[in-house]
Amino acid sequence: MKIYGNLVDIHLRDIYKCCITVDNGKIIEISRCNNNVDLYIIPGLVDAHIHIESSMVTPSAFAVEAVKHGTVAVVSDPHEIANICGIEGVDFMINDSKSVPLKFFFGAPSCVPATSFETSGGIIDKDQVENLLKREEIHYLSEMMNYPGVIFNNIDVIGKINAAKRLGKPIDGHAPGLRGNDLKKYVVAGITTDHECSSLEEAEEKISLGMKILIREGSAAKNMDNLKTLIKNNQDNVMLCSDDLHPEMLMKGHINRLIARLIKEGYDIFDVLRCATINPVVHYNLTVGLLREGDAADFVLVESLENMNVLETWIGGSKVYGQNQIYFSPARRLSINRFNSGLIKVEDIIIKNKGANFRVIEAFDGELLTKERIVSTGNSEDLEPDLESDYLKIVVKDRYNDGPPQTGFIKGFGLKRGAFASSVAHDSHNIICIGTNDYDIVNAINAIVAMKGGLSVSCEGDVKNLQLSIGGIMSSGSCADTAFHYDELNKQVIGFGCTMSAPFMTLAFMALLVIPELKIGDKGLFDVRNFRPVSLFCN
Amino acid sequence: MKIYGNLVDIHLRDIYKCCITVDNGKIIEISRCNNNVDLYIIPGLVDAHIHIESSMVTPSAFAVEAVKHGTVAVVSDPHEIANICGIEGVDFMINDSKSVPLKFFFGAPSCVPATSFETSGGIIDKDQVENLLKREEIHYLSEMMNYPGVIFNNIDVIGKINAAKRLGKPIDGHAPGLRGNDLKKYVVAGITTDHECSSLEEAEEKISLGMKILIREGSAAKNMDNLKTLIKNNQDNVMLCSDDLHPEMLMKGHINRLIARLIKEGYDIFDVLRCATINPVVHYNLTVGLLREGDAADFVLVESLENMNVLETWIGGSKVYGQNQIYFSPARRLSINRFNSGLIKVEDIIIKNKGANFRVIEAFDGELLTKERIVSTGNSEDLEPDLESDYLKIVVKDRYNDGPPQTGFIKGFGLKRGAFASSVAHDSHNIICIGTNDYDIVNAINAIVAMKGGLSVSCEGDVKNLQLSIGGIMSSGSCADTAFHYDELNKQVIGFGCTMSAPFMTLAFMALLVIPELKIGDKGLFDVRNFRPVSLFCN
Repeated sequence: MKIYGNLVDIHLRDIYKCCITVDNGKIIEISRCNNNVDLYIIPGLVDAHIHIESSMVTPSAFAVEAVKHGTVAVVSDPHEIANICGIEGVDFMINDSKSVPLKFFFGAPSCVPATSFETSGGIIDKDQVENLLKREEIHYLSEMMNYPGVIFNNIDVIGKINAAKRLGKPIDGHAPGLRGNDLKKYVVAGITTDHECSSLEEAEEKISLGMKILIREGSAAKNMDNLKTLIKNNQDNVMLCSDDLHPEMLMKGHINRLIARLIKEGYDIFDVLRCATINPVVHYNLTVGLLREGDAADFVLVESLENMNVLETWIGGSKVYGQNQIYFSPARRLSINRFNSGLIKVEDIIIKNKGANFRVIEAFDGELLTKERIVSTGNSEDLEPDLESDYLKIVVKDRYNDGPPQTGFIKGFGLKRGAFASSVAHDSHNIICIGTNDYDIVNAINAIVAMKGGLSVSCEGDVKNLQLSIGGIMSSGSCADTAFHYDELNKQVIGFGCTMSAPFMTLAFMALLVIPELKIGDKGLFDVRNFRPVSLFCN
Repeated sequence: MKIYGNLVDIHLRDIYKCCITVDNGKIIEISRCNNNVDLYIIPGLVDAHIHIESSMVTPSAFAVEAVKHGTVAVVSDPHEIANICGIEGVDFMINDSKSVPLKFFFGAPSCVPATSFETSGGIIDKDQVENLLKREEIHYLSEMMNYPGVIFNNIDVIGKINAAKRLGKPIDGHAPGLRGNDLKKYVVAGITTDHECSSLEEAEEKISLGMKILIREGSAAKNMDNLKTLIKNNQDNVMLCSDDLHPEMLMKGHINRLIARLIKEGYDIFDVLRCATINPVVHYNLTVGLLREGDAADFVLVESLENMNVLETWIGGSKVYGQNQIYFSPARRLSINRFNSGLIKVEDIIIKNKGANFRVIEAFDGELLTKERIVSTGNSEDLEPDLESDYLKIVVKDRYNDGPPQTGFIKGFGLKRGAFASSVAHDSHNIICIGTNDYDIVNAINAIVAMKGGLSVSCEGDVKNLQLSIGGIMSSGSCADTAFHYDELNKQVIGFGCTMSAPFMTLAFMALLVIPELKIGDKGLFDVRNFRPVSLFCN
């Protein structure tokens, strides 16, 4: 098999007409030769850090769209499904991914559960992490979010890190804003990457200590504009990642989209491509080809370097995508879930007025951070949503042990009617719902109970759904199907007056108890500043 | 196999607990029996008139979504693909549909080509229509749009009608606004249905002459609100149809959606269901079951009659949809096309100023009708788009014989930048493009030439596409994928300032030379009132 075109050689930093001979999955010869084929041949692209679950589809369904964008490999942390199903969830991701040619390099989740203040489905302790790291399908210890644990030598945390060291597997970091001596301790512990930098200074300090920086641009967080100059000045220490890519974003592009944007802005094609190919391949020891003789034949044909529109994607010597067709078929999807919640009733979420003031969570468009507001209760018998002041009711329902729903109030979403709910709620993925009235809140939550997971929108009893039957966070359908219906549901919530640009995404972070200030979990309101539960009423 | 639930019996007009025994594809017994299953069992739904091509996917891809909405059969006119590929196009639709369980009842297109004033790909003459009608896969003569031909006894038209009569196959009408004596002649000729009524009076006059009325509610035309009272007063003479259902609409619902809406408005469930089941089955002699002992086991399980949310769809005794899964897989799609257009250059579409005044097509949101405006040219050397006055350039390019592009001006779209083009352009499906500048117009048209059909949007050289490789009007992909990208492109055009709610849909009718007043085809501007070509300039 011979492929002709303009080779973009990231090693020699040169572009030249060539003929590539592929045999038995490998590149056996690359020869300069004249030809009139004006497409470009680049190495296959790598996403250095992504949680597949955020795309709301299985790894095999993810692969169908990713290869259309020239992605040949992803370094992936099955953190979300692990929080729901534990080791079983990690096994599900590995097994599902084996039915497709896209190369998945999974890590061992390092922080499951994320906190002990909420009910989660899965636990992965020190020994289980070590057992995972011993497996050849597990390539690294994934993002060590518990940096206090690292800095203060928490025995479990250090145990996990040492296991990775013993087994010679890289250790990923997750340390937003960590600087100075604490950062030094974090690095000395053996953590070699970070994908949470939001400022250039922070990134440069981390690089100066020997860390690799993953520039993140995905659905939830966008750091490219702040960090992109690193690609000019520190290109050997930089990779590209999406972290979280919602289904409709994955439909539109992947790493190729970031590259096209950088090229249009005048960045050097070789600097940029190296961040998406050789840098992650070397750092994580990935078995991914880099367009050299002897390499695995993993490469991409693109029409132009400015647009990075992918014509063909080749993995292991086979064309997996071309002429708008996919040349593989994912295995029929098995399922996995932990879902044990009963239906709720309006009586379960009525809030009796029990004090002078109450706490309101204040949320902001696209932000994970919230604020706490203290509001006076007035003298009504029950506390009702106040649409005027945009105090909506927020409910979290334990989906694992069927604990009673917890209620609170939230400002910032702006709904004027209806309610919307989701079982995608970081990190424990209990059911979370925001609504303007109890009737729609109950309808929305019960629709999710009936589906054993998914997204739902209710307005005066008219309920629309997207079932996410796999762990309550992934669809058994295609990414296109999931993206279409996810878009529809978001549009509908915005139609209710919601002022958030991505209502379901922001909703999904309102139960994330590790990000300040005030959040709500399945055990009630949680003050993240003081890391303790708090009551709704205060004086 | 036994199915339990509440049987909605459209024959006895009763709902009762029952057990249905299915064996060998048929219903062998229906017995009243107590059970605690609270779902409803209704006959499979029928769309009495639809052009599958408008969903921009193949029949087999259409089937995947339609069965999710409880559709078991469609009466379908392959008019669009016939205009492109002739008989070969009809064969393509029939063959592709055979790979899926949804029951397709195709008609013989009666008016291909629609006019002789434009270049089309396919011709189906009197003898070919007769040969089609002789085939068992062809169930009726489809919409006879050429009603002047019927009224004035055009020999070809009458020949087609007589062939259908001889062969005992029903003849569909298409006669918007036809009344009085002309209507009588049309009915006497043997035409038995109409789906173009927009007023109740018109529909009642047609019914009084023995016609059946298809109430149409689809993407292009919405007549339900004007005609729905027929369901109360003339239920035996009424059917439901969509005519044209764009991919994103098909994703959201089909005939089940119309039924739910009518039920919510208080219409009688049996009246409504009969319009979508027994009426089309009897009129078109469809081999579709109606939930009687001995019938083919074609039925649907719905959760509630108010929402018509489909739990399972059964066709011929097999569950084809249930638990959000499809239980069949469409055959790998073959392709078919007639596309012979070269690339164009900016010089090809420059308009030299040659007169005192020029004609502008005036379009209106969602309307097929246009107006003619006469505008003074001023004294510039070339006529350029005038964004201030919203005079945009419109270009039609012959895709069959590679004739030169024809140019004109159009008002009403409101674009402030970029251009958008489509090879979905009724009825001949040449390439049509509207743009604010020649550079983007050329880019958009050439993108479609390169894809051999599809939709494209260009802004300052940045081009986004949806390839429609089958006949230049259907995608080889899934409906979900097509719907997603179709939505994206529409959003983008609206982002350019377009004030049309469905830009590509309205664009697709600007070359339809049978709807007044001023249109543009691949041979230039056309005055529909006087049914003659006209020049751009006038004095």
